[in-house]
Amino acid sequence: MKLGLLLPALAAFSLTGTVNAETAPIALAIHGGAGTINPEKMSDAQRQAVQAKLDEALSAGYAVLSRDGSALDAVETAVRVLEDSPLFNAGVGAVYTWEETHELDASIMDGATLDAGAVAGVRTVKNPITLARAVMTDSPHVMLSGDGAESFAREQGVTQVPNSHFDTERRLKSLKDAKAKILAQQGVSHQAAVAALESEFKMGTVGAVALDRAGNLAAATSTGGMTAKRWGRIGDSPVIGAGTYADNDACAVSATGHGEFFIRYNVAADICARVKYQKVSLASAADTVILERLKAVGGTGGVITVDPNGRVAMPFNTEGMYRASIDADGNKVIAIWQDALTE
Amino acid sequence: MKLGLLLPALAAFSLTGTVNAETAPIALAIHGGAGTINPEKMSDAQRQAVQAKLDEALSAGYAVLSRDGSALDAVETAVRVLEDSPLFNAGVGAVYTWEETHELDASIMDGATLDAGAVAGVRTVKNPITLARAVMTDSPHVMLSGDGAESFAREQGVTQVPNSHFDTERRLKSLKDAKAKILAQQGVSHQAAVAALESEFKMGTVGAVALDRAGNLAAATSTGGMTAKRWGRIGDSPVIGAGTYADNDACAVSATGHGEFFIRYNVAADICARVKYQKVSLASAADTVILERLKAVGGTGGVITVDPNGRVAMPFNTEGMYRASIDADGNKVIAIWQDALTE
Repeated sequence: MKLGLLLPALAAFSLTGTVNAETAPIALAIHGGAGTINPEKMSDAQRQAVQAKLDEALSAGYAVLSRDGSALDAVETAVRVLEDSPLFNAGVGAVYTWEETHELDASIMDGATLDAGAVAGVRTVKNPITLARAVMTDSPHVMLSGDGAESFAREQGVTQVPNSHFDTERRLKSLKDAKAKILAQQGVSHQAAVAALESEFKMGTVGAVALDRAGNLAAATSTGGMTAKRWGRIGDSPVIGAGTYADNDACAVSATGHGEFFIRYNVAADICARVKYQKVSLASAADTVILERLKAVGGTGGVITVDPNGRVAMPFNTEGMYRASIDADGNKVIAIWQDALTE
Repeated sequence: MKLGLLLPALAAFSLTGTVNAETAPIALAIHGGAGTINPEKMSDAQRQAVQAKLDEALSAGYAVLSRDGSALDAVETAVRVLEDSPLFNAGVGAVYTWEETHELDASIMDGATLDAGAVAGVRTVKNPITLARAVMTDSPHVMLSGDGAESFAREQGVTQVPNSHFDTERRLKSLKDAKAKILAQQGVSHQAAVAALESEFKMGTVGAVALDRAGNLAAATSTGGMTAKRWGRIGDSPVIGAGTYADNDACAVSATGHGEFFIRYNVAADICARVKYQKVSLASAADTVILERLKAVGGTGGVITVDPNGRVAMPFNTEGMYRASIDADGNKVIAIWQDALTE
């Protein structure tokens, strides 16, 4: 049973009442992670809860764009809603590290200026995406990490919480499952044991991309990373070019998936480079990277993307990707599995 | 007075005795950082010391290639020589953080497989490039940071040293100068004060790129980062796509410069993307990114690059860049300032 929603274009109007073909286009896409999302194991109540939260985040971000707000404000707003929900692997609901803590990563990028901000391995910042934005606007740096990033958060007055704020029973159980599977593989390296883990332990991210009325693109990504991660592992989410990229001349991209592949294949920036240099459409570039290049090497995951015309493409090579979008024509999609067109 | 060296092609032969036009090409390029290198302030002894160390690192890496070793071994070997020298901002001789410690970053990439490894913010690892390689080959991750990366180093038996191992008087003085200048700017944000610092405080990196007889490319970069850096700042050196990229289908790149620009402009991967998608030469792609795109926005620095034919390009938009190379034709260059062709 595949489920998905495609609301008619008019639904976008009812959300905001301001979409107007006379004005410059706006568009927003969000994701809540990609992976093995088994429809048989997901209750109707779970599915409805996920869809309602995606709708809430989409509406919050789209409202910013509708009142002529910036793409940066829109993506930060949408990502904060997802970070505050226990349903997704970012903020509350973040997965656990090997040591049963949470280490959060996030990044944001402004397609107009190529300004960017990122944080890696923060433990006490309630909304890592807001700290990433502060790094972009209020520090001379692009990427801050660990204790240093926490110090910067304190200086900036960004809201901090105890690490336990991010705890959920579900993710603790997932950590214990992952550790048991890794430790059960005797005589096998940690590397091989992790490689053998199901993909559901290796992914989960939230993100947003937007086009505002001024024609500016922005992208934002936030995550708790990989279940049972060790050694201060940094995934693709805070790596500009890998998990996040935005360039008004090409597109905005937020990625989710097995982060190591997304770093090595420079996924977010590569999609933009193909649009710029090969002059192919955004949908073609994104499909080539996700459905051909990454799929061929076992790099599981997906992306959400938007171009300067407000066209949206959201390819993924996993069973499902939590996603939602409203494109420049007002077409609204909220979907989980491959077929977004069937109810 | 501009100084540089271009040894005749035969010099490459005398280095190794094995270069043979009958066999597949090999090539190596290294750098020791770019920036405001004032020839008036550099004594002959200083210049000769730098050139001798560049020659030593080049020779060590080239010897690996000459005996049919791998590009990965060659770049690691060359970078270790530079890390162990107090003359460059990596390993011994690394700049100081705001707190008067050293936090080292490094990354390495295999152009054959797009495998990559990186470490950020390590304090006790004698040769960060060797730890980056261990991350690539012996961990399931690409990027490790801080205390976690140190734990991984211990598990792997990678040589560790006290943080004071990296101390030099010269860099301590440079830190004190930088802090004094930043703190003297009253009523100005830390961001603006850092922006006003001379570029010499913001750069300094070592790196290597190589082509081996099997046709494989590799790139490696290592640094102490930016003088007086704060808040766990991560620069471009450990960011795959920014400071380091290698792809057998395009090129290998190691960057040095004001790291924040290199992250935002995805410099290393963008050069490779232009080669792949625009079908331009490596020299053209590298020049466009460094001499046009980055220069236009004040992004100071340079790159060393090599393509699958063993052609080398080393553009920089600063006054100087410590660099050396032997290309596929055996042409050897050791140079500091723009004009490498004059003695």
